[in-house]
Amino acid sequence: MSNNRGNAVVGQSGGPTSVINQSLVGVIEEARKAGHIDQLLGARHGVRGIIDEKFIPLNNVPEDLFARIANTPAAALGSTRDKPDAAYCERIFRSFEKNNVRYFFYIGGNDSADTARIVNELAAREGYELQVFHIPKTIDNDLRVHDHTPGYGSAAKFVAAAVMGDNFDNRSLPGIKVDVIMGRHAGYLTAASVLARQHDDDGPHLIYVPEAPLSPDKFLADVDAVYRKQGRCLIAVSEGIVYPDGKTWAEHMMEDHERDSHGNLQLSGSGALGDYLADMIKANLGKKLRIRADTFGYIQRSFPGFVSDVDAREARLVAKEAVRHSLKPGTSGSIAMRRLISDDYKIETFCTPLETVARFTRHMDERYIENGNNITEEFKQYARPLVGVLPQVGTLDEINELVSV
Amino acid sequence: MSNNRGNAVVGQSGGPTSVINQSLVGVIEEARKAGHIDQLLGARHGVRGIIDEKFIPLNNVPEDLFARIANTPAAALGSTRDKPDAAYCERIFRSFEKNNVRYFFYIGGNDSADTARIVNELAAREGYELQVFHIPKTIDNDLRVHDHTPGYGSAAKFVAAAVMGDNFDNRSLPGIKVDVIMGRHAGYLTAASVLARQHDDDGPHLIYVPEAPLSPDKFLADVDAVYRKQGRCLIAVSEGIVYPDGKTWAEHMMEDHERDSHGNLQLSGSGALGDYLADMIKANLGKKLRIRADTFGYIQRSFPGFVSDVDAREARLVAKEAVRHSLKPGTSGSIAMRRLISDDYKIETFCTPLETVARFTRHMDERYIENGNNITEEFKQYARPLVGVLPQVGTLDEINELVSV
Repeated sequence: MSNNRGNAVVGQSGGPTSVINQSLVGVIEEARKAGHIDQLLGARHGVRGIIDEKFIPLNNVPEDLFARIANTPAAALGSTRDKPDAAYCERIFRSFEKNNVRYFFYIGGNDSADTARIVNELAAREGYELQVFHIPKTIDNDLRVHDHTPGYGSAAKFVAAAVMGDNFDNRSLPGIKVDVIMGRHAGYLTAASVLARQHDDDGPHLIYVPEAPLSPDKFLADVDAVYRKQGRCLIAVSEGIVYPDGKTWAEHMMEDHERDSHGNLQLSGSGALGDYLADMIKANLGKKLRIRADTFGYIQRSFPGFVSDVDAREARLVAKEAVRHSLKPGTSGSIAMRRLISDDYKIETFCTPLETVARFTRHMDERYIENGNNITEEFKQYARPLVGVLPQVGTLDEINELVSV
Repeated sequence: MSNNRGNAVVGQSGGPTSVINQSLVGVIEEARKAGHIDQLLGARHGVRGIIDEKFIPLNNVPEDLFARIANTPAAALGSTRDKPDAAYCERIFRSFEKNNVRYFFYIGGNDSADTARIVNELAAREGYELQVFHIPKTIDNDLRVHDHTPGYGSAAKFVAAAVMGDNFDNRSLPGIKVDVIMGRHAGYLTAASVLARQHDDDGPHLIYVPEAPLSPDKFLADVDAVYRKQGRCLIAVSEGIVYPDGKTWAEHMMEDHERDSHGNLQLSGSGALGDYLADMIKANLGKKLRIRADTFGYIQRSFPGFVSDVDAREARLVAKEAVRHSLKPGTSGSIAMRRLISDDYKIETFCTPLETVARFTRHMDERYIENGNNITEEFKQYARPLVGVLPQVGTLDEINELVSV
């Protein structure tokens, strides 16, 4: 048992996920069990609630609410987009001092890990006993050191199922379809669309991630080749795809627009990139083609009732582990998962120093990407256990071999 | 047993749904059991496959494929957007004559019912024994006579869950959010978003359907009032909303664009209406507001693994009933459901003449709409059993009454 007696703050930060409240409930449950924390305070809207001293006491959350809160997408405490600088972190630390906060559990991505790191260093410098834990959360799956992050599996399951449904929609009414998927810097979520394929001719037929630079010429040649062969084409594309020159497609789109002041491009719009790609296909491959684009939007990160079981369990687990590690005086860190070599999917957790996770984005390894337009079998093996069971589908083509037509 | 011995054709038409293949499997299963049909032929891509005589024999579909096909969204036989005129219907009839088709089962919406009606009349005029059945399918829920239509419950469940998730996303990171939902003429699908509300302050805070004309002034005043009161606003809006002058918002948007040749509006784009509404809010209520728009797109009709159980069961049932009715010589019609007055949800099916369902759209009754921006409790009672169980969610506000802050 720690002799570091005092209060604890738990907060949630950044874009919501479907399982971020599993982590919140994990902290509450384990803190109750461990007993070394006096008051467990929930910060409203992350660091913003800390500096404004807006806390909800969480010691007495009735247990019958746990299951419903855990099932509820998006941050139950409220989230924030604030990215604290040194002065902001100083204010966080002063709030902790004032409220005798000795433990800080911050559920978030790499920016949150960085905030945790800075606050931790401030406390050390001032000789104030504080233990700081980063509890991972991001649908982008882009944290260094972590094998994968809670929130990713559920978002990936949603994307895989959505693209699977769209594949059959596109098969039913053939044409060219573009699906734009979240992920500004890392392609993990878009790559999960590969799990939609169950038959040889299933889409997505082309998958583009930010890690594989893409020129318009290659894009159009790819689409043309698939369409000529299959009479349809389903394309999964990250919102953050880049040109070979390193600029994003979004930036190039804006430059195109500036050149053409009569352009009809909606730059700020939610569907801008998808519409731009659809227009480009239409202009180059044929005006008569049936081309549509959808942008999946926020539901990728907040759709309830369709989470990955593994993801929900792990989101709870890493939070509980953070509280367990906090029992060791002087310990701080980010709770990560490591995959064990085993026939079945197995992980173990460990506590990694905050600075190993903070700030920087992890990108997809090149062994996961094929021809700049496809995702490898190795990635499927990586992602499948995180997503869990997907709907089992079938086609009438399966009987063509059995009966004469 | 009918003495009307011959072959049967089954086809699927129009926009896909998540349960349209339940109906296909229903026809196959029941035809096998009834035994009055020689060859059961699946038309590839609806009426297009009939005139091109592209049929798949369905007598020998292995039963172990039934469950997977039934679970697969979108038309397993392929669909079509062709809307046959009299000449096209004549060609359908000639194909039937040539292939000794005596039964026609057409799974689709009101246009499909109309095609069925015309072909049926042609056969009668020529003294050719043909029985024609329309098997209802549409996420729009806009068929006359039918209490509701297969496909609606699952799409409504998806929309309710998506808006529920977005409500918590919006609560977590407050702002103004517009969700554009399918439905060009009828508001049933958008109205289902009302089922997302489980707490007093839950969104959607405003719901707009095509049946309630909406002016920009009212729209902006509504949003402003909600935002001032709650500090956030979640809006569910049908793609087909109309102005008080009867023109759609999409038409007005296009006129705005023509007036302003420098406009940056993407007219053909998938996200056009949502972006237009978001821009309008920003321009009128404040540039600093956090405003986003999403357009749910095709996944509303084709998302797998999240269907309504009631909907899946009923989609199978109406198809089986069509085959059962075909055993009575001379019978044709559309298989509809009627809701029985009962404490629990109960329906019975009946066969209604094709002309009672064909062509025209059913709109939402005004008793389902409140203040032009909300949906009534009576509608919730209508829709809830069709959607089934939704995720049970919770908020920390529920404990505010229990503990002092």
